[in-house]
Amino acid sequence: MKLAIIGSYGHLPVVLEGLKQAPDVQLVAAARWGQDDSMGFVGTAAPADLPVHDDYRAMLDEVRPDLAAVFVPFYRLAEAAMAAAESGCQIFMEKPLATTLEDLARLRAAVDRAGVQVAACLTCRGDAAFRTIRQAVLAGRIGRCIYAAAQKSYPFNVRDEFYRTRQTYGGTISWIGIHAIDYIHYCTGQDYRRVAAIASNQAHPSRPGMEDQGGLLLELSGGGAVVINFDYLRPWGKHKRPWGDDRLRIAGTEGIIETKDSASAVELMTPDATETLPLAPAVNIFADFAAALAGGTQPLLTTEESFRATEIALKARQAQDSGRFVEL
Amino acid sequence: MKLAIIGSYGHLPVVLEGLKQAPDVQLVAAARWGQDDSMGFVGTAAPADLPVHDDYRAMLDEVRPDLAAVFVPFYRLAEAAMAAAESGCQIFMEKPLATTLEDLARLRAAVDRAGVQVAACLTCRGDAAFRTIRQAVLAGRIGRCIYAAAQKSYPFNVRDEFYRTRQTYGGTISWIGIHAIDYIHYCTGQDYRRVAAIASNQAHPSRPGMEDQGGLLLELSGGGAVVINFDYLRPWGKHKRPWGDDRLRIAGTEGIIETKDSASAVELMTPDATETLPLAPAVNIFADFAAALAGGTQPLLTTEESFRATEIALKARQAQDSGRFVEL
Repeated sequence: MKLAIIGSYGHLPVVLEGLKQAPDVQLVAAARWGQDDSMGFVGTAAPADLPVHDDYRAMLDEVRPDLAAVFVPFYRLAEAAMAAAESGCQIFMEKPLATTLEDLARLRAAVDRAGVQVAACLTCRGDAAFRTIRQAVLAGRIGRCIYAAAQKSYPFNVRDEFYRTRQTYGGTISWIGIHAIDYIHYCTGQDYRRVAAIASNQAHPSRPGMEDQGGLLLELSGGGAVVINFDYLRPWGKHKRPWGDDRLRIAGTEGIIETKDSASAVELMTPDATETLPLAPAVNIFADFAAALAGGTQPLLTTEESFRATEIALKARQAQDSGRFVEL
Repeated sequence: MKLAIIGSYGHLPVVLEGLKQAPDVQLVAAARWGQDDSMGFVGTAAPADLPVHDDYRAMLDEVRPDLAAVFVPFYRLAEAAMAAAESGCQIFMEKPLATTLEDLARLRAAVDRAGVQVAACLTCRGDAAFRTIRQAVLAGRIGRCIYAAAQKSYPFNVRDEFYRTRQTYGGTISWIGIHAIDYIHYCTGQDYRRVAAIASNQAHPSRPGMEDQGGLLLELSGGGAVVINFDYLRPWGKHKRPWGDDRLRIAGTEGIIETKDSASAVELMTPDATETLPLAPAVNIFADFAAALAGGTQPLLTTEESFRATEIALKARQAQDSGRFVEL
């Protein structure tokens, strides 16, 4: 498969790292998302002679890639992915798939017309901790999942200019809350019925459209409550600590399973024991997607799930704005 | 001060333990809340010759105590506390103060008419971890509090019959969620603006009115989000572990502080360091209330706060039932 990269923003390193495990994929071209695109990976993680285009549409027409990796600023993701779909590309892209429900519907239509697959870069699915939890849940270790609590916490640190407004950033629910929305679904196997949300910017006036903390309250499709808290308040400075502090706790009818120490370990509690589980191997979700395309198998994250996670995040944002539960 | 005990349900041991540190208080009488009341403390934690009455109203008339400790099943708390107030007693009582907003208003009026003080048995305020967090927050260690996440988790284990229905039990928000509502207020110094809630019984059909898990989403009075998750799903059996797993994490503009290991430790994160704080000494909140009455000082938990925590819990239950945010 010929791979073309559109934009070098965000989690493109997931693709560049995954390429090492994707023998069927050849990186053949890249295109800047705009004049500001550094394309810093060319000459470091990719050969210095990689053809780099200024216009991704022209690149798609010229190169005709089989697979596009779309990593542009969030408000332009849907537009670039639609162009890739219209060119017949399979698509691996930054999440969220779109920053408005209207753009999401347009992308969905384009993807359906083209008959291509889309995988959002919801990296947590590939993390050892969440894979371990999913395996334990599937093995019945905690019975039926009936309740979950999750956290996403990051430092504010330095943020790009386009995080300044809702219009260009999309909101913190769709940028970081979406991971928890997705990994709870991934680990429990359940969808959601409804959502309420509160989020605001309290301490970072340089990026007024960027909520620096918030919470989600959701109902699982099987019944039961989910709470998610997310923030950009993780202290950052001379004391070195992991970038993020992801957490997940799922209670079932027979036990409780949860991450420990910023998702570096997983603990299972049952009436008989408290045990630290051996971690499942981590998976690079780009390599997984490429392998699934090559083998005709199902990827770790399906097209449906990529759209659904984005839809839920954008409806949660509606709930935040309206102060009401939104049905899912 | 003469103390009379009304009922031996719930957290009465907090009073019996606190008496050892309350030299101004003499336990002079007790009354059963009903025929089923075991009064097991008489002859063990209290003298075997303690006068025990069958009717608390008659006991109040006869003994004229200065202070009443009210520990009856939840749906009868307001009624018994009203009788104590009308008798002119200061009141230390099980939480919630009432299981309906109507009863809460009636109790409020009785307390105001009598000019007495009421302290709810919100024990977490006296716990070392929450006192440590409050002290650190008051000392400015995390800046302005703008976000919190809390957990209350208990085993279902064995529950009394009156937990079966909402009418007699009151609901899990008002029985265990109320602690987190209160200790977030205690630690942040902030009130709340609005609340949404989801809770249900998923796995304990023997007590259909007793929600076995749920979540609250609140907005702090100063802005910022709070999520609380609570459950009765903590595994309980031959593996011994602490009864509860209380948690609290507060983020401020300058750092994050949180409990570790079922609130047996407190960790503070700032840009410069991650440190485990020395724990403040625990306080018995009954002994504290008695000392405040004797000294004319402010107790750890005021009458206003006792009523407010109950009001918020009951309004959160309204939010649960209506599927809407309720203003606070």
